[in-house]
Amino acid sequence: MVVGCVPEWRGQLLLCRRAIEPRYGLWTLPAGFMEQGETLQEGAIRETLEEAGARVAIGTLYTLFNLPHVNQVYLLFRSQLLDLDFAPGSESLEVALFRERDIPWMDIAFPVIRETLWRYFRDDSRGAFGLYSGDIVRAPTEPRRYRITPC
Amino acid sequence: MVVGCVPEWRGQLLLCRRAIEPRYGLWTLPAGFMEQGETLQEGAIRETLEEAGARVAIGTLYTLFNLPHVNQVYLLFRSQLLDLDFAPGSESLEVALFRERDIPWMDIAFPVIRETLWRYFRDDSRGAFGLYSGDIVRAPTEPRRYRITPC
Repeated sequence: MVVGCVPEWRGQLLLCRRAIEPRYGLWTLPAGFMEQGETLQEGAIRETLEEAGARVAIGTLYTLFNLPHVNQVYLLFRSQLLDLDFAPGSESLEVALFRERDIPWMDIAFPVIRETLWRYFRDDSRGAFGLYSGDIVRAPTEPRRYRITPC
Repeated sequence: MVVGCVPEWRGQLLLCRRAIEPRYGLWTLPAGFMEQGETLQEGAIRETLEEAGARVAIGTLYTLFNLPHVNQVYLLFRSQLLDLDFAPGSESLEVALFRERDIPWMDIAFPVIRETLWRYFRDDSRGAFGLYSGDIVRAPTEPRRYRITPC
């Protein structure tokens, strides 16, 4: 189970550029595997601190994606940055805030992150945030593509 | 990760009476551990078929509870029974539909189930269903009690 945050600051989102494989050098939201004895929300807060050096107030669950081909479930929570005193952790090359128009869409590390960012800015522009659940499945005949199924 | 259903039929919910420990003989919603290669929703459907012999159309996520003292997360989905042809599986003594007034509140197997049922009937009576997230933590000084923290 992978937990993480969609860290927000005045219409901007905080992204991390990966210093580790897979997808070294590409951008992602702070997220990682849950550890023993913590809650989903505690895991999301911890990952955001570790990868982005950022402190957040955790909000509601925003996206819930199944990745059955790798036996993973992603749960990403909306969250508010508490200050701008962030800095890359050991797994990040850099950390930065992005407005929608500046998001490096072609350099996002994972489909689950791209799908979450895209929905976030659409919801933000209309002023109403939902909860989204879907499956991201590696298509058997085209190993580098994914099928997104809202559910 | 434990996934399960809140199976509904015309204002009634389907519960299973446990044929296994822990909490042998007490009532619960159909739920169990996710298996490799399935989505959350597929796991919830499978558990409902295995424990209650019931087929459901899966709906939206309803409750999301952290149980950090046992390293578990419960995700329970609203769902609609597709027919009344249900029957107890090997892990259940009996399976039955209950209206709110008939729920065996004193014989519910787990706090996470009691909290979910209680919210369901409250939401059903007002005609508006939310998503609920909380922590169920074993209080260190009182091993048989729990602290529920909405979040």
